[in-house]
Amino acid sequence: MKKKDLAKKMIDEAEIDGDFVERMRHTLSHVMAAAVKELYPEARFGIGPAIENGFYYDIDFSGAKISDNDLLKIEKKMRGIIQRKFKMLRIETDREDALNWANDNKQPLKKELIEELPESETISFYACVTGKEKIDKKSIDELAKEKNVVFVDLCKGPHVESSDDIGPFKLIRVAGAYWRGDEKREMLTRLYGVAFQTQEELDEYLARQEEAKARDHRKLGKELDLFTFSDLVGAGLPLFTPRGTVLRDVMANYSLSLRARAGFSRVFTPHITKIDLYKASGHFAKFGDELFMVHSQVNGEEFAMKPMNCPHHAQIFASRPRTYREMPVRYMEATTDYRDEKTGELGGLSRVRSLTQDDSHVFCRKEQIKGEIQQLVSIIRELYETVGMSKLRARLSYRSDEDKYLGDPELWEMAQGQIKEAAIQNNLDFFEAEGEAAFYGPKIDFMAEDAIGREHQVATVQLDFVQPERFGLEFVNEKGEKERPVMIHHATLGSIERFLSVFIEHTAGWFPFWAAPEQVRILTVNDQVLDYVEKISKELSEIVLDKPLKYNELRFTSDVSADSLGKKIRRANEMKIPVVLIVGPKDVEANEVSIRIHDDKADGGSREEKVALSKLSDFIRGL
Amino acid sequence: MKKKDLAKKMIDEAEIDGDFVERMRHTLSHVMAAAVKELYPEARFGIGPAIENGFYYDIDFSGAKISDNDLLKIEKKMRGIIQRKFKMLRIETDREDALNWANDNKQPLKKELIEELPESETISFYACVTGKEKIDKKSIDELAKEKNVVFVDLCKGPHVESSDDIGPFKLIRVAGAYWRGDEKREMLTRLYGVAFQTQEELDEYLARQEEAKARDHRKLGKELDLFTFSDLVGAGLPLFTPRGTVLRDVMANYSLSLRARAGFSRVFTPHITKIDLYKASGHFAKFGDELFMVHSQVNGEEFAMKPMNCPHHAQIFASRPRTYREMPVRYMEATTDYRDEKTGELGGLSRVRSLTQDDSHVFCRKEQIKGEIQQLVSIIRELYETVGMSKLRARLSYRSDEDKYLGDPELWEMAQGQIKEAAIQNNLDFFEAEGEAAFYGPKIDFMAEDAIGREHQVATVQLDFVQPERFGLEFVNEKGEKERPVMIHHATLGSIERFLSVFIEHTAGWFPFWAAPEQVRILTVNDQVLDYVEKISKELSEIVLDKPLKYNELRFTSDVSADSLGKKIRRANEMKIPVVLIVGPKDVEANEVSIRIHDDKADGGSREEKVALSKLSDFIRGL
Repeated sequence: MKKKDLAKKMIDEAEIDGDFVERMRHTLSHVMAAAVKELYPEARFGIGPAIENGFYYDIDFSGAKISDNDLLKIEKKMRGIIQRKFKMLRIETDREDALNWANDNKQPLKKELIEELPESETISFYACVTGKEKIDKKSIDELAKEKNVVFVDLCKGPHVESSDDIGPFKLIRVAGAYWRGDEKREMLTRLYGVAFQTQEELDEYLARQEEAKARDHRKLGKELDLFTFSDLVGAGLPLFTPRGTVLRDVMANYSLSLRARAGFSRVFTPHITKIDLYKASGHFAKFGDELFMVHSQVNGEEFAMKPMNCPHHAQIFASRPRTYREMPVRYMEATTDYRDEKTGELGGLSRVRSLTQDDSHVFCRKEQIKGEIQQLVSIIRELYETVGMSKLRARLSYRSDEDKYLGDPELWEMAQGQIKEAAIQNNLDFFEAEGEAAFYGPKIDFMAEDAIGREHQVATVQLDFVQPERFGLEFVNEKGEKERPVMIHHATLGSIERFLSVFIEHTAGWFPFWAAPEQVRILTVNDQVLDYVEKISKELSEIVLDKPLKYNELRFTSDVSADSLGKKIRRANEMKIPVVLIVGPKDVEANEVSIRIHDDKADGGSREEKVALSKLSDFIRGL
Repeated sequence: MKKKDLAKKMIDEAEIDGDFVERMRHTLSHVMAAAVKELYPEARFGIGPAIENGFYYDIDFSGAKISDNDLLKIEKKMRGIIQRKFKMLRIETDREDALNWANDNKQPLKKELIEELPESETISFYACVTGKEKIDKKSIDELAKEKNVVFVDLCKGPHVESSDDIGPFKLIRVAGAYWRGDEKREMLTRLYGVAFQTQEELDEYLARQEEAKARDHRKLGKELDLFTFSDLVGAGLPLFTPRGTVLRDVMANYSLSLRARAGFSRVFTPHITKIDLYKASGHFAKFGDELFMVHSQVNGEEFAMKPMNCPHHAQIFASRPRTYREMPVRYMEATTDYRDEKTGELGGLSRVRSLTQDDSHVFCRKEQIKGEIQQLVSIIRELYETVGMSKLRARLSYRSDEDKYLGDPELWEMAQGQIKEAAIQNNLDFFEAEGEAAFYGPKIDFMAEDAIGREHQVATVQLDFVQPERFGLEFVNEKGEKERPVMIHHATLGSIERFLSVFIEHTAGWFPFWAAPEQVRILTVNDQVLDYVEKISKELSEIVLDKPLKYNELRFTSDVSADSLGKKIRRANEMKIPVVLIVGPKDVEANEVSIRIHDDKADGGSREEKVALSKLSDFIRGL
């Protein structure tokens, strides 16, 4: 079937695309298994579902080692099978017949699955059959041996009708996977493929994957010398080098500066606490077994590492009497929390055990909720606009009628109303999700789109009616009565580590000028210009940028080595220095500097300018 | 004996003062016990030694409650006893006799001490005897009953000769103490007294104590709302409020800025690590049982909280190849370390479990040691000069001939030479201490004197020949050979918490203008001036101080409450705001501001000035 026909068929089917594509991907997993069976007759099959963008199959290759290099061969075989033109036919049978098939065909994994199916379950198979529209009812085992049956598999379906429905695909990756996800069972080989309705979509997907690979923050983190891991320190515990620390500090300071403007004060709290704090807050009952426990060898006391900062901040609020005059009280802290993630789930900076949150807490009156949320929403918009991720979506999560939500329902309703008004008044692209609130209050979660179209969960604003209650927080109101504040949790960057993983990939390491660890590098053409480099350095050392982050002293170096200019330019390019000043004897004579500025939109990725030394500071301040 | 005679006697004795004074203090502990026995015949005595500045006695009052209020009564009785004029006479006896005395006099604690004396030990008693120069040998028990024997006590001595030798003294405090320091034994009452050779010394000591009490950072920390403790979080884990956090940040940033100028780069490392790191560094063998251990409930992994940062920084140095061109490599980090101190030893910020170090490490070549030390010494001098503690003493700690020192002796010698040269060239007030070096290298420790003459150990510079070895650190030199760097550990403030405890007491909470959490407060005379306050606030909000810390935005508030001006001034004074702007209708008319500036040297502790609004910014910048 040609692409045009395929598209028509899809419309005809009057189904949402996803369903059809999903069935097609599922069929491809059967085709892949068929190809593997022809190439590796000893292969034992596990399961082969459709997944986002494609499909996989878990296979026991009976000792044969499969690597990415084998994928082309399998893919070629698959295309051959599709050319044979087959129908996907469903056959229902009973347990005995199914087990016979598994035994005769030496498929122990399938046998295990069949044995575990409930008695009442219909057992179905799918067969890829050439030259026939229908098959006569016979045992699966007999069927599998028929000449025009390409492949038979235990399967619930659904599938597309025939090989004609199969669109463009590609096998992309070999991985390992425990049978049934169980570490104690055998390790199988998982073959991954991707498939789309059109070649354009596939090409676009593959290009995006290629792009994502090139932008992988783990790769760039190493190339740009931003962070490192040490086996002696442990997995999920990144150590930030000077360059990475600049990036952390610049981003954290920018985030905190936006909130300082909105009346937030910094506080500082220790990284450990007696577990009594989490017993009082209620966290212990919910998350007690996810805490890193800390043990004193001196006197046997038990502590926990803090996985969040709200209870600590609540203790500061509670440290002295409060009156309505000082409400809202706003605290912020960029501090490192610790979460006991499984080693297998750790990856670069995306998921770490030491996560630094640019965390803040507002303690406010009920009537102040909307105003506070509006402030926070506008801070979030400003920050993500600044980092070039202005496409934000917000999910407003409300309570449902379930019992699990704590606190006064009227307060919930009022607060949800204030949240929605704040979203509307801020022109947020938002959607509402009933039943998605935390048990302690409604919330807004923000998703930001990166440069290659991926959406990342970023900032959050969460109301909390429970902790003020549990800690007995209060302030004295105008009437001299004690009143309970509402708490608002907020992080703009979220975890700085995770934000950096997104930011590095979003920018591909070409950080905006104000954030780049090394902003300017001076390159010399030869040694005759060294005095002039001194002059330039003096100019640069006095530059302090003030947007978007104030008091941002220019970070520059010079490369006066004996290497060729070409080599120096290449080196600066590899480190993704956004601005390079090239200084040769002619520049000295003309009292000028040649500036090469990184610019994605420019021809060759950069543009060049000649600037008089006297104008250099202004020029750089204006970047 | 008159004071003059006493002084003469001391010179005559040709002993160092300390010995005589110590004996006198010891005699006073007997006199105190004698007084207690007369007032509380049921008292059972433990031990009563001389200590620094005075003496104490641990006593079981058999149920009687003793508080500070009882001290005057005891002191009066002591003066009565001294007026009776007695000699301190020594009697030696045997065990049986001593035990008889203890039994007859119901002194079970003394009995316990006697029973534990080694067989060979001479058992001696001291008796305060009136009207006699000598006593006839008889049983202690009999002696104790003699009329002219004021008091008899088991004691090794030595004592002064007679009551004439006793100088001015004062009882100061009642405390609890476990018998023999054992938590499982009975709690005794400890009475503390102080005693000196002259009344001037005693008065000076008591005044200094009074001053220290008024400056107590725990008291000021609460009054000035700088930090708090929470029972839920735990002892030794301070939480810093907004004001305390400003102080922390200002001091840490100032300290880091001095080092940034000297080529140090910030790095960031996690607060936990696998213990493998400390096994590799050698710390585990030495300090393993002082670590807070961290336990993963998810997979049982064992970590430790970092008590120092050097091994983490060494991992960053080791994360990529290094060449001589980039040496020295200088890292710094203001990060919180955790040390498992005993609960009983914790006190305010002086000793905490969460200590934030302004820590740094230089990795340099052997020939670069002196230059690096000179830089660090000059940074230390600048910082302590700035905080008004310019009287610094330095101890240069060298190795001795013992075996415990690791690393090449020649390297030690060269390094010690460079340290001394650096000390001399920096005009340091230093002394040398052989055998006081750390096992890994020689060091310089700095002691700073505070405003009331107390000396505090502050900054440190330590060479380390061992960690580079243990971690296999290296760089490639000019010849292409691998060379091992030397590490230099340095902290300028040391622990920021401990520094703040000193700084708060040193300044009595009147922080220098640039460091004060709230630098300026505007006070209104009445409501007519609110618009003018707006104008002033606008001026102030544009002020950014740049000395000694750059980019130090002015921190100000305004008190526009309906309270009287007097009350507002009192309030500002209580919070020790260094600069107060008083605004009344006349100021509005004259376009002026009345400024009251705290100044210890000024009459009334402050001086006042009228400044035109147009000159206000310059005036404040010049403070």
